[in-house]
Amino acid sequence: MNQDNQSSYIQGFSKWGLQKKLEFMSSLTGIDINVLMKYAWPDEDIANIINKLSENTVAHFPFPYGLAPNFKIQDETHVLPLVTEESSVVAALANAAKIWYTKGGFRNKVLGTIKKGQIHVFWSGQPELFFKRFSKFKSKLLDATRNISGRMEKRGGGVLGVELLDKTKELPNYYQLDVSFNTLDAMGANFINTVLEKMAQEFEKNMAQEFPGELPVEVVMSILSNFTPDCLVKAWVECPIESLDDVIKGMPGAEFASRFQKAIQISQVDVSRAVTHNKGIFNGIDALALATGNDWRAIESAGHAYAARSGKYQGLTKVYIDEKMFSFSIELPMNIGVVGGVTNLHPMAALSMKILKNPSGNELMGMFAVVGLASNFAAITALIGQGIQQGHMKLHLDNILQQLGADKNQSQKAREFFKGKTVSYANVEEYISNLK
Amino acid sequence: MNQDNQSSYIQGFSKWGLQKKLEFMSSLTGIDINVLMKYAWPDEDIANIINKLSENTVAHFPFPYGLAPNFKIQDETHVLPLVTEESSVVAALANAAKIWYTKGGFRNKVLGTIKKGQIHVFWSGQPELFFKRFSKFKSKLLDATRNISGRMEKRGGGVLGVELLDKTKELPNYYQLDVSFNTLDAMGANFINTVLEKMAQEFEKNMAQEFPGELPVEVVMSILSNFTPDCLVKAWVECPIESLDDVIKGMPGAEFASRFQKAIQISQVDVSRAVTHNKGIFNGIDALALATGNDWRAIESAGHAYAARSGKYQGLTKVYIDEKMFSFSIELPMNIGVVGGVTNLHPMAALSMKILKNPSGNELMGMFAVVGLASNFAAITALIGQGIQQGHMKLHLDNILQQLGADKNQSQKAREFFKGKTVSYANVEEYISNLK
Repeated sequence: MNQDNQSSYIQGFSKWGLQKKLEFMSSLTGIDINVLMKYAWPDEDIANIINKLSENTVAHFPFPYGLAPNFKIQDETHVLPLVTEESSVVAALANAAKIWYTKGGFRNKVLGTIKKGQIHVFWSGQPELFFKRFSKFKSKLLDATRNISGRMEKRGGGVLGVELLDKTKELPNYYQLDVSFNTLDAMGANFINTVLEKMAQEFEKNMAQEFPGELPVEVVMSILSNFTPDCLVKAWVECPIESLDDVIKGMPGAEFASRFQKAIQISQVDVSRAVTHNKGIFNGIDALALATGNDWRAIESAGHAYAARSGKYQGLTKVYIDEKMFSFSIELPMNIGVVGGVTNLHPMAALSMKILKNPSGNELMGMFAVVGLASNFAAITALIGQGIQQGHMKLHLDNILQQLGADKNQSQKAREFFKGKTVSYANVEEYISNLK
Repeated sequence: MNQDNQSSYIQGFSKWGLQKKLEFMSSLTGIDINVLMKYAWPDEDIANIINKLSENTVAHFPFPYGLAPNFKIQDETHVLPLVTEESSVVAALANAAKIWYTKGGFRNKVLGTIKKGQIHVFWSGQPELFFKRFSKFKSKLLDATRNISGRMEKRGGGVLGVELLDKTKELPNYYQLDVSFNTLDAMGANFINTVLEKMAQEFEKNMAQEFPGELPVEVVMSILSNFTPDCLVKAWVECPIESLDDVIKGMPGAEFASRFQKAIQISQVDVSRAVTHNKGIFNGIDALALATGNDWRAIESAGHAYAARSGKYQGLTKVYIDEKMFSFSIELPMNIGVVGGVTNLHPMAALSMKILKNPSGNELMGMFAVVGLASNFAAITALIGQGIQQGHMKLHLDNILQQLGADKNQSQKAREFFKGKTVSYANVEEYISNLK
């Protein structure tokens, strides 16, 4: 290593104590170590749990934890715990819940719970021979994983099956062992990966026995799939069109329904809109995922890939209007868990589960679909009404005032002045500097 | 409302004081209010800022805030602040950084910074006439937004242009006003939406003047697009194949490169793998987004839609190998900001910016691409080596031990016992209950 490398490379950082890490962060940022030490959760037991979730933890990053009440889901009223940094998300959800509370509420249905994993292999021999031999030892693969899946099976889950898939048309010599799972109330990532790796070992062993002296099979990797199109949930709302009167103040239900339908149609035909449309859906879904300790990257990946399954990326919600009724629905894959992982470990994720009345895995899947649908309903309603900025403006103005360091008096005057006016950083800055 | 509705519906929740909200949460969960009050950030100034980010905030949800050192990016060494609930993400990133530190480090390049928004309109008249008249008043649309965009323009950004697009082949009577923006160091959501809504008003006014007495144009909505394929960044690493020797212990560089390439090829041809592949990329990207106060839903939506742009959902990274060299790259849209929004407001997001040495918007785009590439490199390296579970197993075991309430002595014995063995909940439960 050259001089520069020697001076900038940090050796053994993960083994440093917290004090040394904080000193390092202080020297890096010029922020006093006493300030940095304040970025820590006060309760030591909780802090220890949070520290262990990840590595090299030097502090704790707080997000607002909010509640959206009045979600009527399957005739029962729920309060949703939500964690998000984006303003208006919680307020919009609470508003959507309120609107649908008196119109029958939200319905949902789990359409499937099958998850998958693959053992990705390369083999240069005859496909027919491969399939023939594989069928001979296939059951051994399942037997070899019994001691891992036994507990799952007792409760009705476990490994559902394994199939050999010929993928050689897509990539020379490429095959998959496609394994199906039911992981019940758990997301099941560790379980699936452990089963797959064990199965891969057994597979290699049997292949060596079946094809002695030949080029061995190459197992490139064994890993769960986050694409879970068969772990699917649907949520919907439905009401007479006339009861949509005044959802947007002064707009008749029929006009609301027609404009709403156009917004949905646009998200079906235009990618630029579809992405934003779905982004708004995940504003709600991710907020519930963070609050319940679920893996939002897994949920997002599956959801967006599902949105692109037709070959064209499209919005995830659908609307149906006949002469009398307005129906609005969402369907998306949802791989979440209510046991295991962060959901059990993080005390506030555990709190969220209590607020949700300790739902089963399927019930929570349904709630996720509902919060996505509600988020989309709120966004579309704002967009086809007065535009999204009117709702955002108060918060936007507050943010700008905070950034400008406006005092209470100045802020109050600015809020009065900007009622109904366009808020931009420049406008507010000018107004405040004139005040000063 | 019927009896049940009356009893479960909560009136005016957003206006309740914190105390009343906490009492409500206590009655809902059976958790003592004194416990719930502990779920709050101790520093009042910071707490007030966090409270205002969102609505109905009743508590603060802490995530681990960790550091990954030794990221050599464009020849300069960086420490990345990361916020994630998933174990192994930070450790894996630190490991990838270490590996590439001595092989030239990471490179990146911003390929574009154009963002878009659309005014979605329906009009039933002659398309030719529409385009002709639109060109007459087009410049007025830009003029009308000058007082909003003036400050942006002074610094070299602002509205770049507006085009009328005929989308009637996709949906009858559907057109777009497609507006391009450069928002400099800001994500620019509020700016873009404010400009669009103002422009939409001006558009409606001019259309009424141009087509008097005809059916009016219908502006369905005006909103930014989160699909930002022209706000694009690339990151890459490159090294001689022989210097990849022992990246996986005992594996020659050529074999590593070959197996790595197969893993990437699979992510290009197989959707089940591509989704998981990209999910791992966003494990890193989202952790940096949370730490810097950036909107990860926007980043994810754009990234996944970009992954599907060919009509088939594919992995976002590419590998190129010739006789001597191994090159590995990522290219994805990245709409982030270093000024405005949560990045400035949240004190720990501001801390993150200092740790990153206060990068410009373009520099931070590059860092996001790097962290995505590093996350993918770490994941593939684990998968094509000993499998992903070996790395996860220690943490998985620790989690299970914590859930089982194992004491220090039992945990230590379990860690010894399970070295090199398969860890499952059932196995560990059995082992611990035998100890007890």
